[in-house]
Amino acid sequence: MEYIFSKRTLKINPSLIGQMSIWANEVEGVEKSFGQGIPSENLPDSLKVKLIEAIKEKGSINKYTLKSGMPELKKQIALDINKRKITDDITEKEIGLTAGCIGALFSAILAIVKRGDEVVIFSPAYPPHIEIVKIAEGKPVFVSLLEKENWRPDLGKLEKSITKKTKMLIICNPSNPTGFVFSREELKEIIKITSKKNIFLVSDETYDFLTYEGSVHHSLLSFPESRERAITCFSFSKRFFMTGFRVGFVVSRKGILEEILKIHDQSNICVSTLSQYAALFAFQPNIRKDFEDLHKNFIRKRELTLKRIKKLSRFFEWQPPKGAYYIFPKIKFSNLQKKISPALERKIEGRFRKIKKELQTPDFKFCLELLFGAKVLTIPGIIFGPHGKGHIRISFGGSIEKINESFDRIERYLK
Amino acid sequence: MEYIFSKRTLKINPSLIGQMSIWANEVEGVEKSFGQGIPSENLPDSLKVKLIEAIKEKGSINKYTLKSGMPELKKQIALDINKRKITDDITEKEIGLTAGCIGALFSAILAIVKRGDEVVIFSPAYPPHIEIVKIAEGKPVFVSLLEKENWRPDLGKLEKSITKKTKMLIICNPSNPTGFVFSREELKEIIKITSKKNIFLVSDETYDFLTYEGSVHHSLLSFPESRERAITCFSFSKRFFMTGFRVGFVVSRKGILEEILKIHDQSNICVSTLSQYAALFAFQPNIRKDFEDLHKNFIRKRELTLKRIKKLSRFFEWQPPKGAYYIFPKIKFSNLQKKISPALERKIEGRFRKIKKELQTPDFKFCLELLFGAKVLTIPGIIFGPHGKGHIRISFGGSIEKINESFDRIERYLK
Repeated sequence: MEYIFSKRTLKINPSLIGQMSIWANEVEGVEKSFGQGIPSENLPDSLKVKLIEAIKEKGSINKYTLKSGMPELKKQIALDINKRKITDDITEKEIGLTAGCIGALFSAILAIVKRGDEVVIFSPAYPPHIEIVKIAEGKPVFVSLLEKENWRPDLGKLEKSITKKTKMLIICNPSNPTGFVFSREELKEIIKITSKKNIFLVSDETYDFLTYEGSVHHSLLSFPESRERAITCFSFSKRFFMTGFRVGFVVSRKGILEEILKIHDQSNICVSTLSQYAALFAFQPNIRKDFEDLHKNFIRKRELTLKRIKKLSRFFEWQPPKGAYYIFPKIKFSNLQKKISPALERKIEGRFRKIKKELQTPDFKFCLELLFGAKVLTIPGIIFGPHGKGHIRISFGGSIEKINESFDRIERYLK
Repeated sequence: MEYIFSKRTLKINPSLIGQMSIWANEVEGVEKSFGQGIPSENLPDSLKVKLIEAIKEKGSINKYTLKSGMPELKKQIALDINKRKITDDITEKEIGLTAGCIGALFSAILAIVKRGDEVVIFSPAYPPHIEIVKIAEGKPVFVSLLEKENWRPDLGKLEKSITKKTKMLIICNPSNPTGFVFSREELKEIIKITSKKNIFLVSDETYDFLTYEGSVHHSLLSFPESRERAITCFSFSKRFFMTGFRVGFVVSRKGILEEILKIHDQSNICVSTLSQYAALFAFQPNIRKDFEDLHKNFIRKRELTLKRIKKLSRFFEWQPPKGAYYIFPKIKFSNLQKKISPALERKIEGRFRKIKKELQTPDFKFCLELLFGAKVLTIPGIIFGPHGKGHIRISFGGSIEKINESFDRIERYLK
């Protein structure tokens, strides 16, 4: 039977990060941590104890919360924003809890972008930034990040890319997949441009807690001049190691927040109550300290990743990430002279034919080769927009052992 | 500052059930249980024990699951569908976990309905069925349920309401807010009509476990002839008393499910892992038994509600609900001769002016009067679509004590 769906889903790609992961499940003994944006760490015991207490004692854990979230959690978030000296003028009325950062992004984009609107996105970009714009029937307009200059944004091009149809700019800071962190000056300039052009500025700050070697994260919230058109989206998934809890939040002017929450309410009603308690408990000083200790793991994981990839410099070139836990190396195809067996070739071709034509790029083929040949899951760069072509994304959120094992396998395979 | 939002949010109403609840928070000592679709029961200890074990032992609880949900939970759901003799041909490949039933409805409607498509909805209807269609830029077309005939659907009108633009029919079985339960013959007829007209049939079966006095719930899944165009949406919120856990699921043909999950993936990534575990544990025989015991409370609550409302027959007339835990009485305005104090009048008028013109109906005013005068939250019928006008929705999911106290207050106030 043939079905007619709304154009909005036919235009979008099913999550190819998810699809790669499903294909990976077919490979016995596969190493998946390079492909997944999931920190390997478990929850600290201090948080588990509080969660268990809540399950035992709180009659409210199985009931809905208010649609914008639990008041005590919103208060705690406002306090946290103050404590981190991001800004001191945000009140809980400007905060809405969402199903992860993605719930915030989805609701914000659907509330604002209408058919035919253009949305400027720096590329390479986090794929949902692109796909959600398509769900809203908007048109993503890509402005390249400059790879040779450590993936900084091309601000000259940004201004030129804004037309009368442009409704929004989306930035990801620190950037997934490139690890780029915007400087204060760059953000000032971006705010100047978006204010002048009168467009919304959406900032995805999922990895705000995670920068390296003196790089500093500047939240959009720390620029009062951005406030009237800013939508700042956060996640607890990575900061508090709770990707599976589906809890994040959005900060914006009340008049904007109300529209965003209309969409979130109709798609989710509210965030899981137990997840909201988990986030609330995570702010307690002792538990927060446990998380901050866990964050130090990422420094070691990054160092190891940089050390290990150096041995592969014949096959890759890369920019050391300044934030987040991804590295986005460019593949030196000319140095890949590996002969592929006909059986492997067939396996790769079989999957390759299942993806859309415009995604059938050499980097996608290379990732399939690594998956079925080296038993290591990585993510093809093309998934991150046109400027991702020719790259792969490696996540170093996994354990030290898994990072070593994955590099061992790639080394053995390529050499 | 003036913002330009996408039309899709401007056209929709913010959840007025939520808004009534926010206004109720201003009333000291208010009784809210009549207004909320939340069962008062806590989780049984048997489930709490399993959840605590999972938090202690499972390293996966803080990690994402696959986007369609945990394989073991999908298997369990398929088994449960078989065990309840609904049908035996559904496999886990046709099941997707969603953020409550609303996550299923939202994703299904957005995947299918495009601008200008018509969607037929029996009215009175669950408000998100109406609002989500508007988010998809579709047009809700209402077919009345026949109040005098215990809210059965007008199937003659149904067929006539379907045009070339009609893409979908949404039914709610058992119905929120009317408590109507579709008979097997009515469903057969509906399937015949939707098949002939070649439109999708979405069935919201949130209250599938809850019917009274010999009424039987027939799932859309029990009609193999509906399969090619059926999207059946379920919730664990009410059956397993976990409204705050945000977990439900959708069943449909794989080709349809894939499109639905594209939207769910981009708005949620996946359902909270701990919530999925909670649903999985709830199927264990001893825990399931505990829930089935708790379900018996609803019979007592319904009986009490019918006994208590009988004393108010001067002011209301009603159809006894056959399913779910709502009663939807019609207000006899001519018998309401209560003089309202000027102070109360002002309070009501203040709120009244904040709602959209088309919702400023006498039933809305009456609910505000009950809220500020009798300190009892109820929900105005107009929120449930045009045929809800002149009614109020009373939920009897709350405790026996709260049901009694709320009726006491209304009696005292009206008499």
